[in-house]
Amino acid sequence: MSGNTFGVLFRFTTFGESHGPAIGCVIDGVPPRLALNEADIQVWLDRRRPGQSRFTTQRREPDTVRILSGVYQGQTTGTPIGLLIDNVDQRSHDYGDIAESFRPGHADYTYHHKYGIRDPRGGGRSSARETALRVAAGAVARKVLGGVSVRGALIQLGSHAIDRARWDWNEVNNNPLFCPDAVAAAQWADTLDQVRKAGSSIGAVVEVVAEGVPLGLGAPVYDKLDADTAKALMSITAVKGVEIGEGFAAAALSGEANADEMRAGPNGTVRFLSNHAGGILGGIATGQPIVARMAVKPTSSILTPRRTVDVNGNEVEIFTKGRHDPCVGIRAVPVAEAMVACVLADHLLRHRGQCGG
Amino acid sequence: MSGNTFGVLFRFTTFGESHGPAIGCVIDGVPPRLALNEADIQVWLDRRRPGQSRFTTQRREPDTVRILSGVYQGQTTGTPIGLLIDNVDQRSHDYGDIAESFRPGHADYTYHHKYGIRDPRGGGRSSARETALRVAAGAVARKVLGGVSVRGALIQLGSHAIDRARWDWNEVNNNPLFCPDAVAAAQWADTLDQVRKAGSSIGAVVEVVAEGVPLGLGAPVYDKLDADTAKALMSITAVKGVEIGEGFAAAALSGEANADEMRAGPNGTVRFLSNHAGGILGGIATGQPIVARMAVKPTSSILTPRRTVDVNGNEVEIFTKGRHDPCVGIRAVPVAEAMVACVLADHLLRHRGQCGG
Amino acid sequence: MSGNTFGVLFRFTTFGESHGPAIGCVIDGVPPRLALNEADIQVWLDRRRPGQSRFTTQRREPDTVRILSGVYQGQTTGTPIGLLIDNVDQRSHDYGDIAESFRPGHADYTYHHKYGIRDPRGGGRSSARETALRVAAGAVARKVLGGVSVRGALIQLGSHAIDRARWDWNEVNNNPLFCPDAVAAAQWADTLDQVRKAGSSIGAVVEVVAEGVPLGLGAPVYDKLDADTAKALMSITAVKGVEIGEGFAAAALSGEANADEMRAGPNGTVRFLSNHAGGILGGIATGQPIVARMAVKPTSSILTPRRTVDVNGNEVEIFTKGRHDPCVGIRAVPVAEAMVACVLADHLLRHRGQCGG
Amino acid sequence: MSGNTFGVLFRFTTFGESHGPAIGCVIDGVPPRLALNEADIQVWLDRRRPGQSRFTTQRREPDTVRILSGVYQGQTTGTPIGLLIDNVDQRSHDYGDIAESFRPGHADYTYHHKYGIRDPRGGGRSSARETALRVAAGAVARKVLGGVSVRGALIQLGSHAIDRARWDWNEVNNNPLFCPDAVAAAQWADTLDQVRKAGSSIGAVVEVVAEGVPLGLGAPVYDKLDADTAKALMSITAVKGVEIGEGFAAAALSGEANADEMRAGPNGTVRFLSNHAGGILGGIATGQPIVARMAVKPTSSILTPRRTVDVNGNEVEIFTKGRHDPCVGIRAVPVAEAMVACVLADHLLRHRGQCGG
Repeated sequence: MSGNTFGVLFRFTTFGESHGPAIGCVIDGVPPRLALNEADIQVWLDRRRPGQSRFTTQRREPDTVRILSGVYQGQTTGTPIGLLIDNVDQRSHDYGDIAESFRPGHADYTYHHKYGIRDPRGGGRSSARETALRVAAGAVARKVLGGVSVRGALIQLGSHAIDRARWDWNEVNNNPLFCPDAVAAAQWADTLDQVRKAGSSIGAVVEVVAEGVPLGLGAPVYDKLDADTAKALMSITAVKGVEIGEGFAAAALSGEANADEMRAGPNGTVRFLSNHAGGILGGIATGQPIVARMAVKPTSSILTPRRTVDVNGNEVEIFTKGRHDPCVGIRAVPVAEAMVACVLADHLLRHRGQCGG
Repeated sequence: MSGNTFGVLFRFTTFGESHGPAIGCVIDGVPPRLALNEADIQVWLDRRRPGQSRFTTQRREPDTVRILSGVYQGQTTGTPIGLLIDNVDQRSHDYGDIAESFRPGHADYTYHHKYGIRDPRGGGRSSARETALRVAAGAVARKVLGGVSVRGALIQLGSHAIDRARWDWNEVNNNPLFCPDAVAAAQWADTLDQVRKAGSSIGAVVEVVAEGVPLGLGAPVYDKLDADTAKALMSITAVKGVEIGEGFAAAALSGEANADEMRAGPNGTVRFLSNHAGGILGGIATGQPIVARMAVKPTSSILTPRRTVDVNGNEVEIFTKGRHDPCVGIRAVPVAEAMVACVLADHLLRHRGQCGG
Repeated sequence: MSGNTFGVLFRFTTFGESHGPAIGCVIDGVPPRLALNEADIQVWLDRRRPGQSRFTTQRREPDTVRILSGVYQGQTTGTPIGLLIDNVDQRSHDYGDIAESFRPGHADYTYHHKYGIRDPRGGGRSSARETALRVAAGAVARKVLGGVSVRGALIQLGSHAIDRARWDWNEVNNNPLFCPDAVAAAQWADTLDQVRKAGSSIGAVVEVVAEGVPLGLGAPVYDKLDADTAKALMSITAVKGVEIGEGFAAAALSGEANADEMRAGPNGTVRFLSNHAGGILGGIATGQPIVARMAVKPTSSILTPRRTVDVNGNEVEIFTKGRHDPCVGIRAVPVAEAMVACVLADHLLRHRGQCGG
Repeated sequence: MSGNTFGVLFRFTTFGESHGPAIGCVIDGVPPRLALNEADIQVWLDRRRPGQSRFTTQRREPDTVRILSGVYQGQTTGTPIGLLIDNVDQRSHDYGDIAESFRPGHADYTYHHKYGIRDPRGGGRSSARETALRVAAGAVARKVLGGVSVRGALIQLGSHAIDRARWDWNEVNNNPLFCPDAVAAAQWADTLDQVRKAGSSIGAVVEVVAEGVPLGLGAPVYDKLDADTAKALMSITAVKGVEIGEGFAAAALSGEANADEMRAGPNGTVRFLSNHAGGILGGIATGQPIVARMAVKPTSSILTPRRTVDVNGNEVEIFTKGRHDPCVGIRAVPVAEAMVACVLADHLLRHRGQCGG
């Protein structure tokens, strides 16, 4: 249980480093007779793929996924789905510095001391490359979820937040930053150009909204739907904070202001007058949209030299050459969506197991 | 797997509602030959116990814990530790309103629809009473952790944050609010008196700091130490946000500002010049203090009438009589500490299992 | 994960030693709105209770179960069911010999060396007393299973097997040995009297038959229905062998003889012409009766002195005073039934989770 | 949790059908810095490989394994080890009969009804091909186990058992049947020729012996070392019974005869005078050799026509063309060894996690 599996009933297990021959994923517990082919997965992988704009790493990975098992004649069979993505762009690097010294803010140092050995090529297992497999698993989770919509957006770059009044989901796919606010998107492009040219990096905030989640999904105590979501998002590389609904702003509210009042809706349903809860009460989905956010720190791989130590304990300076994202938060958008989809698919099956229907 | 167990190797399973005869906990995987008696657990339960000041619910629960198994002659035996706490103050209430109508912001509504049945007495399983067992498990986790210190504090009440320059750990136990800033503690007491008299409630932010955590604890991908911590804290009643280190503030930092530079320390160790990471890199402990925060929403049980619906879909108004905490964030402090201790104890055993010694 | 929890979705966790104040069980994942009260559980506990005939230990334990949570107004709520059984007959023993020396064939020796500490009173956690909780969990599993019948019988005592032509399920409850063959039951009573008077013990074979198990329960590879059943039965104290269907006799069959041929049954069903498979093919239930057997070794606690060593490594002799079962296989019958019921309930929920319906 | 993962700390997850492009395995939790390369795994795969004698299927699979991750410069890194084996010999078959009708004794029928869909090519996921991955995982488990020896042998073919007085471990690798008795091996070769020519099949019994297992491995109640071993072996295709030590013969013994008496050995150790227990007491290893046996039913794929039904419920006859093992028990020997090795490796890490060192 060294933590390379996610989920209980809908669960996926991944392997692979950024510079090995391939990375892969086993998705287990998928219901049988769902339509699934490689294009269903590839479309989501393509959203996350690097090298699509000047704002993400120029590493050129086609990230072409192959389904090795679990699908027969275009339908899932209920047996494990094996996925494989070859690593193509393993450019020959000089990893000397990175192999010998610890990048501040990077997992080099902790891997080295946990395991006593480390694959220094491209970050090894701690590379963001692993997140491609999360996106692939998320594509299958969406099939399990049927009509549930799970969409993400970049809502803050550095200290600049979007204007929520301008939120337009269509805009998210119109700019390379997954920004729902066209005005902010244009401003951020300038900001990112400066950051990129300076060899620096910048943080961001991502929001994911899931609509159509059935009332009742979740669990009451330790595996609360929000707790599992928090784990899912915090497990993504570079994430340092997670919120549900009002999040940290809830601390500043009164009980009156925070209450989501209810009125009778059509056909015996309930209509909420607000959604401070972000769609989850007591760990269980209310039927309102689930709203989650995560904070992504700036990439630790920057061109500016930083003080550090080498593996022998000597004081040195280090800067990171190579092709890095100036803002990893951008490509984290499809990853965050995927993780939320996986949590929901898992809880859908868990709920059906215990409560039927 | 309806989510009433927490942890992998150090794991606890709880049961019990606020108004049944008792609540209980089974702690499994505890190493043998640790000194443990009931007083070791009781001291932590007493910190969380209600009714100790005018700022927490006046329900009078002694929360006396009994060890039913797993300890022989004052030492753990390696077999499961069964704990039982009798429910004493089951005052005879009129639960008519709560049984028939859904309190806005409360789990009433979601339990009712998930299970089709609900124990309305005192919140049933969704009651904060369940958190007493987390504190008990945390007391045992501390034994497993040996020299690791895990301490929590209330750092924000409503919109008023402490002044970190005045942080004094000794002060935390000097006031009934677990506030490390004596000046803020005095101001907050006034604020809370107003909130309480108004029958309202208020949110808060809790910070937990773990010192002495061995470098290397954690796991690289889905069970990152920060991901498990996020789940642990988000699973506590009323929590809506979790941060590690800089948290959401990391989004606004540049890569240069966020990097924790390293210098050679004494005896071959490494000295970090800052701790933006909050003690965790790539999911693995750096050896620096682990710093986690959580946002607690205001109690949903308030005296002000709110609009809602009843179980038959009729529009009604509801307000909550009874003995409620004006700020559940206060008693969440020992709970948050306990959950962090449990995550660390689990990862201590997991690390030893895979990597030895 | 020191192994005190059984099951995935329908799962129970137990604690308690034979001479502590109480033993207990948490049953998690139970579907809501099942009718359940203490009498539903007590009836099964009473079947296993010691002291009901001269053929079982004379320890007098009423084994009265209390439901502490998870049931409201006679129905399960979907939250964990806490059960407690007080230990009543903790007769004051002299455990000097057992505490200082290792009984051959008993877990004394291995516990001592695994944990470096051991509760010597009455076998501690390795006592058959723990099996009462399995029976309690099995009673709840039967509620989950609805119309599925799970029945067990003693089919061999020492080297004497029943005559299957005389099998009568009604007879099982007519004699204190759970024997389905009235002739054998009478003969075995004599045999057991001799064994008991000699201070010796004897082994046995138990068979469990589950009828009405839905076609399709199970899983294909590692969690095969037969694999989980094998684990469930082998985990019972003193069990040394497990068989499904033909079991070891299958080794001597040809492929032709072992094949369960199929014919069309009424209403589109299939009629099997035999059941060599014991109701499971490829890890999945065929809809035929599931047939499992287990071999129970003779009790290791006997009056005849045996050679052993003490905790200091000195060579000594030991014999076990006290009130022991001459054949633990007898009381293992309700325990085996319960474990099969728990496996089936778990797979019922797991199947529903993945495949629906 | 549809059961494609085995183990808790040392755990492997597999995917793949017999006629897809490849099968694969992710091994998680492997300690870092163990020497490992592909040849270390290939040597065990070669033992199980089909087509090596006239007594196993003539399917020609080289079963060449590739390590895709988790190993760097010949050492494990502590991250998941991804293994891939291409399917090479996917001879173009006419699966018409098998696709439309259910082979008696085969998983066709149960898969069809569980999932409502089935990959009929070569048995799909229920094919014995999946066991190659168990052998690969077992090879890595052996690295974790260091000096522990895990060896298996065929001890019964049909109704003919070996003479244990002639047991010679060296003989096991001298004949294509893994038989430790040279005389029996010669006789069995004749028997198998007859079975093969008749288009029939025959069952067998396999014994596995693990020597050097540290005293103390295991767990006391549900995850007993013997319970986990029983599950591991019963999960292998075609296995119908499992025994530890005396197994079913223990039922016929008296307590006196079954007791393994102890004497003082050299250097403070203990010397057992017998090993009826098969090396496990109370679920925990005694330090004696662990002895487990399993019964393997005859292959259900035979040339003799058997009565069955087709997917539309019509009564038909079926016989299985193609290249099948006359006795799957032979190739089950390396699989059984591998599963025992995996159970022991898992419990080694689990013991170290809870109890240290």
